[in-house]
Amino acid sequence: MTTLPDPDDYLLRPDPADPRLTERVRGVDQSGASVETSVTVERALTIFLNAQEIVTAMTINDYPEYLALGFLLNQNMLSPDDVVTGVDYDEELSVAVVRTERATDYEQKLKKKVQTSGCAQGTVFGDLMEVIENAKLPAAELRTSWLYALTRKINTTPSLYLEAGAIHGCVLAVADRPLVYMEDVGRHNAVDKIAGWMFRHRVPAHDKIFYTTGRLTSEMVIKSVRMGIPIVVSRSGFTAWGVELARKANLTLIGRARGKRFIALAGEERIVFDQDLAFVAEESAKHRRKAAVHED
Amino acid sequence: MTTLPDPDDYLLRPDPADPRLTERVRGVDQSGASVETSVTVERALTIFLNAQEIVTAMTINDYPEYLALGFLLNQNMLSPDDVVTGVDYDEELSVAVVRTERATDYEQKLKKKVQTSGCAQGTVFGDLMEVIENAKLPAAELRTSWLYALTRKINTTPSLYLEAGAIHGCVLAVADRPLVYMEDVGRHNAVDKIAGWMFRHRVPAHDKIFYTTGRLTSEMVIKSVRMGIPIVVSRSGFTAWGVELARKANLTLIGRARGKRFIALAGEERIVFDQDLAFVAEESAKHRRKAAVHED
Repeated sequence: MTTLPDPDDYLLRPDPADPRLTERVRGVDQSGASVETSVTVERALTIFLNAQEIVTAMTINDYPEYLALGFLLNQNMLSPDDVVTGVDYDEELSVAVVRTERATDYEQKLKKKVQTSGCAQGTVFGDLMEVIENAKLPAAELRTSWLYALTRKINTTPSLYLEAGAIHGCVLAVADRPLVYMEDVGRHNAVDKIAGWMFRHRVPAHDKIFYTTGRLTSEMVIKSVRMGIPIVVSRSGFTAWGVELARKANLTLIGRARGKRFIALAGEERIVFDQDLAFVAEESAKHRRKAAVHED
Repeated sequence: MTTLPDPDDYLLRPDPADPRLTERVRGVDQSGASVETSVTVERALTIFLNAQEIVTAMTINDYPEYLALGFLLNQNMLSPDDVVTGVDYDEELSVAVVRTERATDYEQKLKKKVQTSGCAQGTVFGDLMEVIENAKLPAAELRTSWLYALTRKINTTPSLYLEAGAIHGCVLAVADRPLVYMEDVGRHNAVDKIAGWMFRHRVPAHDKIFYTTGRLTSEMVIKSVRMGIPIVVSRSGFTAWGVELARKANLTLIGRARGKRFIALAGEERIVFDQDLAFVAEESAKHRRKAAVHED
């Protein structure tokens, strides 16, 4: 008898047992006793678009192809209707090359790097602001019952976070079902890997919900809008510019989502308050992100 | 009667009441009720070194001059013995210009940007690795009694974090006394502002302890070593590369410091275990960083 895949399970989820992603190191604890612990591994991955070297990213490198595609998409160097003829990954050189039918040249663009706020991409190009100006995010709904079901599932999913800490997580979901859960040392990498996965598998964005452990900064808003996802949920807080851009783009922006509580500062009209709050538990110590902090 | 300044108090600490640093915005909470909340403001600050535009950083912009100096120092564009003839800050243009006696030219360097892991600087230059190779960090000690006193004081200091969240904090301390507490939307900015403050006031590093809310990544280690501070403590976790570099540079690296617990993965020999752990409290809900998460 074969078992059918659980239709409620993730399509892609963290594999904390993957030995390439963590390393065991020895140290001492508060009592001076020798202890061994897991730490997350970060590796340099250099991304090329055709013949041009674009960037070197530090990543856990579990999905170099999705990361390369998603990075180029979110930097506006690859367009959703570009024909990608191949993505070559050379493990030894740690290089991913995205090849397109269209000839590309971003030399000028690479000079215009602007450094953004922490936990951030490091680079945002001025023309990404056009994304906000031209945003046409679809009507969609977020039922609060979905939101509570999603955060409960995500918090209890085995992850590198629970194994080694010091990592960000992002989840692409539809209704109350998490589809893809990506982690990375940089939050922007986790987002980009989801964008690359969506592009590769031609997954529509209009009905999706994007969950992140990270802050709702201008950069996160720009990326979400660029991906066409109308609803973003975070455990963490907001920056003023993130809120302003979300309002301009009519993106639903929900932050500080922990246990029963959350706050929406943009696009509130997509929220359907169908959950009886008397039946939502506060986060238990077991289910909240480990040891009272979210690793930056 | 005049009051003398408390010799145990900070020299510089957050001013959560500063109206330029937060903004009040309206939204809805989990019950659909209208609420007002504070969010952190981020602004673009463009840093020049003499006639050359170096970078545009997103910052809360409370100390543009310290940020400009510290950024240039930590990027190895300004050396500790450079003579700074002035730092001009133009509030309207949001530009800070650092002027040096020495003629500077970093055009080649600006092309060699490497994007680092999230919550990171965005740029690390290859030659910063030389800092690690040539590191000669001083002998120093960290008594565990200091560590517990420091974290207790820091966690109970009024801050933008407690006011609005979504912000990183860094503290420069000596023994059990926190001296300078800086916050910023990017952790790297908070570190750079401390570096700028130390440079401006010719503060020696050999006896200092550096506390951060952020992860102990390669970048944080490189910055600490560059600043000459021998001991780094964080609430958050480690990356493998961060640990490796700290060991190479003989930096004392302590992470996951919360309540009674911590773990040291490099430079353990500087730690003096003088605290009777029976007298250390676990973090109370009141004293730990708000609501079970550290904002990214």
